[in-house]
Amino acid sequence: MKAYEIQGGFGIENVKAAERPVPVPGPNEVLVKMLAVSLNSREQGVIDGLYDPNMKLPLIPVSDGVGEVVGLGKRASKFKVGDRVSAIFTQSWISGEPTRANWISTLGYPLNGLLVEYAVLPEEGLVRVPGYLTDEEAASLPCAGVTAWHAIVEEGKIKAGETVVVQGTGGVSLFVLQFAKLHGAAVIITSSSDKKLEQAKALDADFCINYKQTPDWDKAVLDWTKGVGADHIVDVGGAATLNRSISALRVGGRISIIGLLSGARAELDIGPAILRKARLQAINIGSRDMFEAMNRAIERCELRPVVDRVFPFDHAIDALRYRGTGAHFGKICIVF
Amino acid sequence: MKAYEIQGGFGIENVKAAERPVPVPGPNEVLVKMLAVSLNSREQGVIDGLYDPNMKLPLIPVSDGVGEVVGLGKRASKFKVGDRVSAIFTQSWISGEPTRANWISTLGYPLNGLLVEYAVLPEEGLVRVPGYLTDEEAASLPCAGVTAWHAIVEEGKIKAGETVVVQGTGGVSLFVLQFAKLHGAAVIITSSSDKKLEQAKALDADFCINYKQTPDWDKAVLDWTKGVGADHIVDVGGAATLNRSISALRVGGRISIIGLLSGARAELDIGPAILRKARLQAINIGSRDMFEAMNRAIERCELRPVVDRVFPFDHAIDALRYRGTGAHFGKICIVF
Amino acid sequence: MKAYEIQGGFGIENVKAAERPVPVPGPNEVLVKMLAVSLNSREQGVIDGLYDPNMKLPLIPVSDGVGEVVGLGKRASKFKVGDRVSAIFTQSWISGEPTRANWISTLGYPLNGLLVEYAVLPEEGLVRVPGYLTDEEAASLPCAGVTAWHAIVEEGKIKAGETVVVQGTGGVSLFVLQFAKLHGAAVIITSSSDKKLEQAKALDADFCINYKQTPDWDKAVLDWTKGVGADHIVDVGGAATLNRSISALRVGGRISIIGLLSGARAELDIGPAILRKARLQAINIGSRDMFEAMNRAIERCELRPVVDRVFPFDHAIDALRYRGTGAHFGKICIVF
Amino acid sequence: MKAYEIQGGFGIENVKAAERPVPVPGPNEVLVKMLAVSLNSREQGVIDGLYDPNMKLPLIPVSDGVGEVVGLGKRASKFKVGDRVSAIFTQSWISGEPTRANWISTLGYPLNGLLVEYAVLPEEGLVRVPGYLTDEEAASLPCAGVTAWHAIVEEGKIKAGETVVVQGTGGVSLFVLQFAKLHGAAVIITSSSDKKLEQAKALDADFCINYKQTPDWDKAVLDWTKGVGADHIVDVGGAATLNRSISALRVGGRISIIGLLSGARAELDIGPAILRKARLQAINIGSRDMFEAMNRAIERCELRPVVDRVFPFDHAIDALRYRGTGAHFGKICIVF
Repeated sequence: MKAYEIQGGFGIENVKAAERPVPVPGPNEVLVKMLAVSLNSREQGVIDGLYDPNMKLPLIPVSDGVGEVVGLGKRASKFKVGDRVSAIFTQSWISGEPTRANWISTLGYPLNGLLVEYAVLPEEGLVRVPGYLTDEEAASLPCAGVTAWHAIVEEGKIKAGETVVVQGTGGVSLFVLQFAKLHGAAVIITSSSDKKLEQAKALDADFCINYKQTPDWDKAVLDWTKGVGADHIVDVGGAATLNRSISALRVGGRISIIGLLSGARAELDIGPAILRKARLQAINIGSRDMFEAMNRAIERCELRPVVDRVFPFDHAIDALRYRGTGAHFGKICIVF
Repeated sequence: MKAYEIQGGFGIENVKAAERPVPVPGPNEVLVKMLAVSLNSREQGVIDGLYDPNMKLPLIPVSDGVGEVVGLGKRASKFKVGDRVSAIFTQSWISGEPTRANWISTLGYPLNGLLVEYAVLPEEGLVRVPGYLTDEEAASLPCAGVTAWHAIVEEGKIKAGETVVVQGTGGVSLFVLQFAKLHGAAVIITSSSDKKLEQAKALDADFCINYKQTPDWDKAVLDWTKGVGADHIVDVGGAATLNRSISALRVGGRISIIGLLSGARAELDIGPAILRKARLQAINIGSRDMFEAMNRAIERCELRPVVDRVFPFDHAIDALRYRGTGAHFGKICIVF
Repeated sequence: MKAYEIQGGFGIENVKAAERPVPVPGPNEVLVKMLAVSLNSREQGVIDGLYDPNMKLPLIPVSDGVGEVVGLGKRASKFKVGDRVSAIFTQSWISGEPTRANWISTLGYPLNGLLVEYAVLPEEGLVRVPGYLTDEEAASLPCAGVTAWHAIVEEGKIKAGETVVVQGTGGVSLFVLQFAKLHGAAVIITSSSDKKLEQAKALDADFCINYKQTPDWDKAVLDWTKGVGADHIVDVGGAATLNRSISALRVGGRISIIGLLSGARAELDIGPAILRKARLQAINIGSRDMFEAMNRAIERCELRPVVDRVFPFDHAIDALRYRGTGAHFGKICIVF
Repeated sequence: MKAYEIQGGFGIENVKAAERPVPVPGPNEVLVKMLAVSLNSREQGVIDGLYDPNMKLPLIPVSDGVGEVVGLGKRASKFKVGDRVSAIFTQSWISGEPTRANWISTLGYPLNGLLVEYAVLPEEGLVRVPGYLTDEEAASLPCAGVTAWHAIVEEGKIKAGETVVVQGTGGVSLFVLQFAKLHGAAVIITSSSDKKLEQAKALDADFCINYKQTPDWDKAVLDWTKGVGADHIVDVGGAATLNRSISALRVGGRISIIGLLSGARAELDIGPAILRKARLQAINIGSRDMFEAMNRAIERCELRPVVDRVFPFDHAIDALRYRGTGAHFGKICIVF
């Protein structure tokens, strides 16, 4: 079977097609024929060696995917052949709070990922996906969807009438937008592109801010909320955005720290944080329980993930390069 | 000014029109010209002397109403003349958990209620109401709306994809239906009337059960939820429904105990309750903070309370009698 | 090896010693040589056929025990030979909320229990026990300890200064007493025996009520709490005690429903429950995560479970009969 | 009567004794004869003009104090003459979450403080204090005690067996130590002084780290917790300590951000925060409800606040200067 591997060194130029034997499931495992994968910013960090310069190569990248069950280990009983399943990102995080030990079980690094025709996975590391979704829509859920759900539903306990600020229009941000609207909340979204803000408006964003034109978007948030501030802010920017997020926050509000797009070290002004009684909650994807609760909500409300562009498996490297341009609105997917 | 009073004895026949002087607000109080009130089942209990056989009479009944600020005490600063406001049911319960002391401050008993042309109320016991609502819609909120919000949002922390069971089509039940839908949940509703179930379907109820035709509605709930059971059940029936509610519950689910329509003493089968890890939460309306959070959600989502029928102030007693028939779907209101 | 079995019919007279082959662990399983077991009221229900009249016999009874690891399946890696371990009651409930499927994995029914010299258990269904405990102390934890911990710590989030009411001096009640004191709470305990109340006082109970002499113990609780009521009540009585528990409760307080000692069907007065904003939480033991959190607390505070009497394995039936008398204060154990 | 005022400019040299008339309580107010006050680091910030360079002067400093009720406004009914009461720091924050409006009601700035012989305060802004405490012990509670309680009990929901890291031996830190021990938790404390660590050990600290000798105290915390990390860290250092706090944290643990002793701007490494699923909760003292819950716990457990040194009212300025030296262990108080 065909797989893509990071071979011999880091960088996109070292991602290459390779031949591997089709794997055989162990007793509690399942053989999955991949149907689609989606890309996250994490892929780039892994490929460029930023996550772990001593990473063992070759490694199959890409954590998120959906496939069809085509083989069952002798004790595997949760699924049957023909089921469409998605792998959970942190294979060993089933329920409750995570532990350090869970982090060694994430797909796409340190475990091999899903940019491969067939994968073997423990049945406990899989979930069924809503039937009405296309393969590429279903493939969009494991990291971006679960992170958004974890942040504003599981931890944030969002409720109708609250206000959520979403930064940018990447995968997590658009899922936050969609899940917030599902719960009757108002959504404020920031972007540097008027075109993307128009697209966000079509997804029912309530208030759009072009942060190039309005660099002090925190003031715009305070104005829009009549001086109260936002209840939830999902901060994907890290370094560049944290203090503005605190400024834009309601007293007693919550900031979910998702990413580090603009740098790995943020400055935090402590005085304003104390005056907001700010809650900062770092989020690292989520558990299988959260994935299943999210799927239930998606199915109930017939929500459709936002897919930007779909590439064929043979052009997987083009997909990875396209993601690097930042031109996308929603998820970039690869179908097999 | 004109008021209705329970005079000299209990029973609807002792509710009579009376003349009272227009009251004068104290330093932190507000004079409110009533615009509309709504009726709850509690009114009947008060009028019939079931709440307190030693209740001091005369008493002005009816707890829920909306009015216009027409006078201000000399230290009252939260509102201005012309504001449209609603009284909170438990006048002294502002925030956090209630205490025994709060219960002596409920309107319509033991405090005088709002079936009167002018009322004086502490400014801390009032909230602004969403501007787009009619007076009668706004008057529907204080007990029925806040109870529903308290039960499934504040305590229940409802989220998208969950399933809520609502019993009947009274005021609380329809608000639960509406608030659950606002949060992306599925709603199952029971009634003995196919006509009312049709009306509930028009409000987006997902599954309707006529409990006359299907007395074991708990089994129907289990079937509809594929054997899992409902996440939330808002039990308004008390005696007649509690054990069926437990039977229909998901393991780890929650029953809100709202009322005692079918009797004040319920039987509780302990074994099934333990196997469901059932949470039973009795609800007694809610705080001003909850009322304001609810109003924010209502306004954000442009929700419209369900008003069954509106009577003029001169026909207030007809309204009280009509409520006793149980024919209504939603709230019965009186406008001034 | 020797085991006790319920053979051919229900009732203590059908519990008999039997010979069984020593079992062999599967790949993820562990062979445990039993050191001690403890008895719960559940044992009696199982033996008498009250849990399931169609229960398949023979069955090895008794769910709670501690043993030494003496053999490992080929993929079992969490423990090593010589470790002292305890089985969790619900073998498949690891973390988070339980599901219906978990209830088929409880020891002592429907799964075989631990009144046997050697048992094979999945490694995921075991926990290490604090080293300083005797075998019989350690054997006291799985049902009684975890139930108490679940009720007042995990669900009840008990904090210093609160008041807890404990009914009787059985295993769960004494663990509640001890865990409440660990957290700086006050404990009120009821019993029909002055002698047992003296023993409870020696465990630092703050206020003792002989409910034979003071049948309206709810009033005594209200007096002692200056009219406020108790924050937590752990109700083990069921039918006979629930309405008194509600009467004795603080507004916003919590009742944990643990057992059904005095009957399986309780009457619940709904009006008082609503005036207390009562939370009733049924408890069905707990998860492995809870067991481990409890063990950490026990070890940190060097808490010693209360053991009433210890019987040798050869006199296991005497131990079961002794439990039926209700004379005990704390746990009844059997050592091998 | 005598008061101390910040007069004409900032800096300790501008704090001077002044004569003011004894104030007269309004209708809902109480006249309090001050018995003792305690000092916090905030006092220094106020006196030095760091909080607000445009602060209106003169201002009576010092927020925390206890006094005796000696006069009542005509509608004040919560207290009687002779009661010993403490003022709450944020006079208008009674219950639930705070709002921006609450921050204008804090004592010692912007409102006048309590370094004065008589103060008039709204009855809603007072609490009774435990009777067995000395005046100076009681005066230690409003900021330092409530902050500690809010951080680890109300928000942190600390439970037995957990591990808390406390930085330094200031007022908040010692209350955290004491409250954590009340709840059966383990406490790790850091200080640059072996003498202070000895004193902390006498208060039952479980593990002491001299951070001068062990600058990588985070590693010492990880070692002591067998690699798991601490459940709660109360970070008083701000700039200098935040990333080490994250390093020392359990996955899913909580950092309370209390102060900014080492600077107002902290650097936050986002990657490690995400791998710990870190919760950072900024704390700004607390509500009256929290104060009362804390008092109940203190009284129940007969806890005694740690008072370092007591100055007479005539030497108040010496007390303020002494606080600046940082030599203290526990609270510095002034008695009248």
